[in-house]
Amino acid sequence: MNCPCISFSQKLIMTGKRILQLQASLRGRNLDAILITEPANRRYLSGYTAADHGIQESSGVLLIPKNGRPHLLTDSRFELQAQEEAQGFKVELYRKGLAALLKTLLPDLGVRRLGFESHYFLHAAVGRLEKALAGTTELVPLTGLVERMREVKSEEEISLIRQSVRLNERIFQQVSGTVAPGMTEIEVALAIERAMRENGAERPSFDTIVAFGSNAVKPHAVPTDRILREGEIVLIDMGLILNGYCSDMTRTLFVGKPDSIFLERLRAVRKAQLAAVKVIRAGAVCREVDQAARQVLNKEGMGKAFGHSLGHGVGLAVHEAPSLNPRNRKQLRAGMIVTIEPGVYFPGWGGIRLENMAVVREDGCELLNEDSTGLDL
Amino acid sequence: MNCPCISFSQKLIMTGKRILQLQASLRGRNLDAILITEPANRRYLSGYTAADHGIQESSGVLLIPKNGRPHLLTDSRFELQAQEEAQGFKVELYRKGLAALLKTLLPDLGVRRLGFESHYFLHAAVGRLEKALAGTTELVPLTGLVERMREVKSEEEISLIRQSVRLNERIFQQVSGTVAPGMTEIEVALAIERAMRENGAERPSFDTIVAFGSNAVKPHAVPTDRILREGEIVLIDMGLILNGYCSDMTRTLFVGKPDSIFLERLRAVRKAQLAAVKVIRAGAVCREVDQAARQVLNKEGMGKAFGHSLGHGVGLAVHEAPSLNPRNRKQLRAGMIVTIEPGVYFPGWGGIRLENMAVVREDGCELLNEDSTGLDL
Repeated sequence: MNCPCISFSQKLIMTGKRILQLQASLRGRNLDAILITEPANRRYLSGYTAADHGIQESSGVLLIPKNGRPHLLTDSRFELQAQEEAQGFKVELYRKGLAALLKTLLPDLGVRRLGFESHYFLHAAVGRLEKALAGTTELVPLTGLVERMREVKSEEEISLIRQSVRLNERIFQQVSGTVAPGMTEIEVALAIERAMRENGAERPSFDTIVAFGSNAVKPHAVPTDRILREGEIVLIDMGLILNGYCSDMTRTLFVGKPDSIFLERLRAVRKAQLAAVKVIRAGAVCREVDQAARQVLNKEGMGKAFGHSLGHGVGLAVHEAPSLNPRNRKQLRAGMIVTIEPGVYFPGWGGIRLENMAVVREDGCELLNEDSTGLDL
Repeated sequence: MNCPCISFSQKLIMTGKRILQLQASLRGRNLDAILITEPANRRYLSGYTAADHGIQESSGVLLIPKNGRPHLLTDSRFELQAQEEAQGFKVELYRKGLAALLKTLLPDLGVRRLGFESHYFLHAAVGRLEKALAGTTELVPLTGLVERMREVKSEEEISLIRQSVRLNERIFQQVSGTVAPGMTEIEVALAIERAMRENGAERPSFDTIVAFGSNAVKPHAVPTDRILREGEIVLIDMGLILNGYCSDMTRTLFVGKPDSIFLERLRAVRKAQLAAVKVIRAGAVCREVDQAARQVLNKEGMGKAFGHSLGHGVGLAVHEAPSLNPRNRKQLRAGMIVTIEPGVYFPGWGGIRLENMAVVREDGCELLNEDSTGLDL
């Protein structure tokens, strides 16, 4: 716990293996190279940690040929960081945009068929690229190639995610212990995010949610200056990034002695969560896991109050495949990591959500959380 | 300064005018409606403030018909916020994705030609939409329609941006006054971001940059646990969002008595900045403004150390048009707001950047900054 860092050589071995796996997949699809634009995929394959300020301000793109040395294409602002972090990559700078650089680079590398991430490439940018490469290189849209590699985590990755979860829990326990009437939602959220950064997290994995009383009705509530009063709900949904890997946890507390409505609803949500945990294992169908929780809430007469999906994968991105929703017919595989987060929301009253993370194993699931605040009912 | 909020009715008038202007533009292009996916455009036209967690997790899309009531399409998580904020909009929820909702909604609205924001629509998502709408609705790619409306700010917007700049300056002055040897980059960045939130900012407009000594060589440095020592550079690049509008400012300080190399380089950067300020006015060509600063640094023998553009527009987005770069042949117009941020970077030594914001006026420019820390040389 005190040294969550992984060594430089470990990182290099991890990214090296992934590149080889991707290159084999390119050759199998008769592609000469692929452009990697999705930021988590870029980090997964290269170790380059720069964050993007939105899709229109990329901090770089990977060009991975089917054989040989991969390239990282970026601009001068990121040159040093790219060279330091993306070991084994050749760093090339674009001064007049990506299309112009590729126009000269691709013929040198003999790339005639170039895959791109259709799910993370802007429609207009594809148009520009097609124009620049017309007659020399064919663009082939791909979807989810690297995401599918990322779905199943290695034991090294699981260990990193466990560290991220543990740090997140420690910070939750530390800050939630100080929450008291008179504080605002923003104050609590700030205290959490400050503690994250002070304890070595790169950043929150999403905007921290702190919602008091009836504000907890919004699953994606933004903290306000609402002041906490005795007898109110406190919903905290928080996660952080440590060594690139995300955590995500929700707890719903009550200030003072909980009333019977709160306890009844909290117990129903917890029961739904445990029902889902019970069915998670390699081979389980995603929508059946969602269904296991949903049935509990239906029986309790709260089915309509549970308007969102049960959970989602977590890794380098805080929301990734697989999705545990009522429509996903895919099967879980060992090594996947998912959240289990049923919730009920009643306008005017508030909401309750409980969220843990678990690793899918062959014969069940392994909970990553140790914190049991508000779960022992 | 104490009440930076704008009233609800003011907001409604602002968005209403913009919708009418856009609808006229749609009719002029023979379009029946447009989908607005870009988050700042969405806020500009609707007042809906939800932030997106990346392009793949949109918190909603506007559907604006050429006549009549605009729609906001979102999912159940954002229903309440959308209804509260997007006044005048009809809020519709998608349960099975945007394409499925549009497939039923567009025929009802008689939409046969639908514009979309090609520069903020994923290639794969366009493919899905084309498939869903085949035979009923033609998709027409558009670029920058709303961004061009946003380039020139109204006096109301200029006033909001001025308030954002002022708050940002106050926080810079407050925190920079406490910076002392022994502190880490992360500590300083956290203190800044905490002060932003405590003083009413929605959030930082970008990840705050605090770089000590040789770390200042990276224009987009990420704060580390490097400890500040006497005799080092402190580069701070920070901005916040207040009422939706961004600020962006950079100062470069020195701990202790500055040496002659630092002073020489700082003076050159400041001289370059002032040269650019002098030529900014309605009608000036963007690349000539960039050139005015670049020439100064060239003359000082530091041209190669200035690797990025001179500046960018600022508004609802922290980086928007117009770009002040060596290639942009467009003319500035009155009401545009730009940053002026020359910088020089020397590997092993560090970097210096100074950034102010100004409104383009008919006969010159109006600086939005009052802070002069490190600028009086």
